[in-house]
Amino acid sequence: MIVWITGANGFIGRHLVHQLAGAGHAVHGVGHGALDATEARRLGLQSWINGEIDAANLNALAAAHGLPTHVYHLAGGSSVGISIERPFEDFSRTVASTARLLEWLRGSARDCAVIAASSAAVYGADHVGPIAESAIATPMSPYGQHKFMMEQLCRSYAQSFGLRCTIVRLFSVYGPNLRKQLLWDICSRLQAKEQVLTLGGVGSEIRDWTDVRDVARLLASVVEPASQGNCRVINGGSGRGTSVADVATALVRRWGSSTVVRHSGVSRPGDPISLLADDAMLRQIGFDWRISLDQGLADYVAWFKGRHS
Amino acid sequence: MIVWITGANGFIGRHLVHQLAGAGHAVHGVGHGALDATEARRLGLQSWINGEIDAANLNALAAAHGLPTHVYHLAGGSSVGISIERPFEDFSRTVASTARLLEWLRGSARDCAVIAASSAAVYGADHVGPIAESAIATPMSPYGQHKFMMEQLCRSYAQSFGLRCTIVRLFSVYGPNLRKQLLWDICSRLQAKEQVLTLGGVGSEIRDWTDVRDVARLLASVVEPASQGNCRVINGGSGRGTSVADVATALVRRWGSSTVVRHSGVSRPGDPISLLADDAMLRQIGFDWRISLDQGLADYVAWFKGRHS
Repeated sequence: MIVWITGANGFIGRHLVHQLAGAGHAVHGVGHGALDATEARRLGLQSWINGEIDAANLNALAAAHGLPTHVYHLAGGSSVGISIERPFEDFSRTVASTARLLEWLRGSARDCAVIAASSAAVYGADHVGPIAESAIATPMSPYGQHKFMMEQLCRSYAQSFGLRCTIVRLFSVYGPNLRKQLLWDICSRLQAKEQVLTLGGVGSEIRDWTDVRDVARLLASVVEPASQGNCRVINGGSGRGTSVADVATALVRRWGSSTVVRHSGVSRPGDPISLLADDAMLRQIGFDWRISLDQGLADYVAWFKGRHS
Repeated sequence: MIVWITGANGFIGRHLVHQLAGAGHAVHGVGHGALDATEARRLGLQSWINGEIDAANLNALAAAHGLPTHVYHLAGGSSVGISIERPFEDFSRTVASTARLLEWLRGSARDCAVIAASSAAVYGADHVGPIAESAIATPMSPYGQHKFMMEQLCRSYAQSFGLRCTIVRLFSVYGPNLRKQLLWDICSRLQAKEQVLTLGGVGSEIRDWTDVRDVARLLASVVEPASQGNCRVINGGSGRGTSVADVATALVRRWGSSTVVRHSGVSRPGDPISLLADDAMLRQIGFDWRISLDQGLADYVAWFKGRHS
């Protein structure tokens, strides 16, 4: 396989590069981030273009290394909060970049399989219990809306131009190198020896927690492209729900702290009460999650402490 | 009212300018088209900017004429066929322009009411009989997909930032000055004295035909903005369906020709078999369609012959 990864320098991107390069594939990347050639090679990238997902950069990649057999499209906005602060930035990063990528593939590499990382945020707030891929999407933040628009572009290019797309809706991905969100926030405050941790939200929010190393393995395993003109959607979640409060408590315990965790009781804008995957389709594919939440939290704490030691 | 119209130089835009200026409103336009000041005034525009819907042009309009109370967003792709030939162009004209407009309004004129022209094409192929606004949208062309994405942006900015949007899904709009599509095509070929008219499609396609002068009156009548943060969707169709074959035959008769109309029997890509509005919501608003299909076709023929005489 000749694999291109957009957003290869992001949290999930770096793990996916590691996974695919480790399996012997030629991996090239485009997206934002000042990686020099040594650093790019250390990550597993044969080449790296620091810039927009646009025709000029995609042409340059193709000219230097040939056409891709698979494109992983991971570039895009990555924060509900930032999408509310700066919605146009999120639109540009998520939707406009996808339009440019698909248009380039239509013209230059129509047989290339596309695997796009979407988000459970497309489902929105109206769900209780496991959510199937066929559920109605009612996103409640610009982030979720834009991810859903990205999916529609994939559907449109599959339907009208025969592109083959696989959309993986990722749930709550955490793991080594994640430098934002709940786990990062808690560890940073434990490190600073805060005595009482007051977190946003109500604490009972249910999330489907998945370790990024499992997620990278999942993404690497869906390379078998959908058939011509098809756009399949797969939940990238485990089907196991754990509340934010339980994850916070378990993490504090793993840290070895007796700090008390409290919740503000005020839901954050754009934050659904439950996002849990119906994993029937993943089980059909035969994918198995290997890293338990306990193990994942232990590894996260070890990584966090390691980088500060 | 201080009204801005994007795409004011388009087919529907020009009729809407005429309607609103005739009612005494200050109307300004932005979009593509080389109109000099005299021509712009003749159309009813107090000012015109020939260019993209972007922050620079919107800032310039605001600096010269103050903030708008109402923005009609008519700019966008206008052809299913072209959207299949050049999907990125259609995306840019329909989706990216909307993202820039809404972002500008979020920053500069959040109280302004937005009225956006969408299309029955968002409904797609899976419908028989009258289609309600709540029907599932399964667009079957990039044109329909992009119109639906435009709607989602409106929903997103209403939901997250309190903008007030009214989306009017227009059906088969025809009338004086329309220089493309079925009626234009037939008249042009009758003018050229073709003896047998073979049209694309199967002929039994049902469409909801509306005269552009009625449509302009409809758009002008929905100025009462949705409440803060609300995004209402209204079918801009009459609820009366007529087949393409019947319209073609009636038009030929109106022309005074005995030319035979045939249909290729091959459906065009992106062309649903039936697009008919459920007009319950329009009737609730109290809007009445005034121009019958017979009258509209007669007026179209008169306009067509007039411009060639």
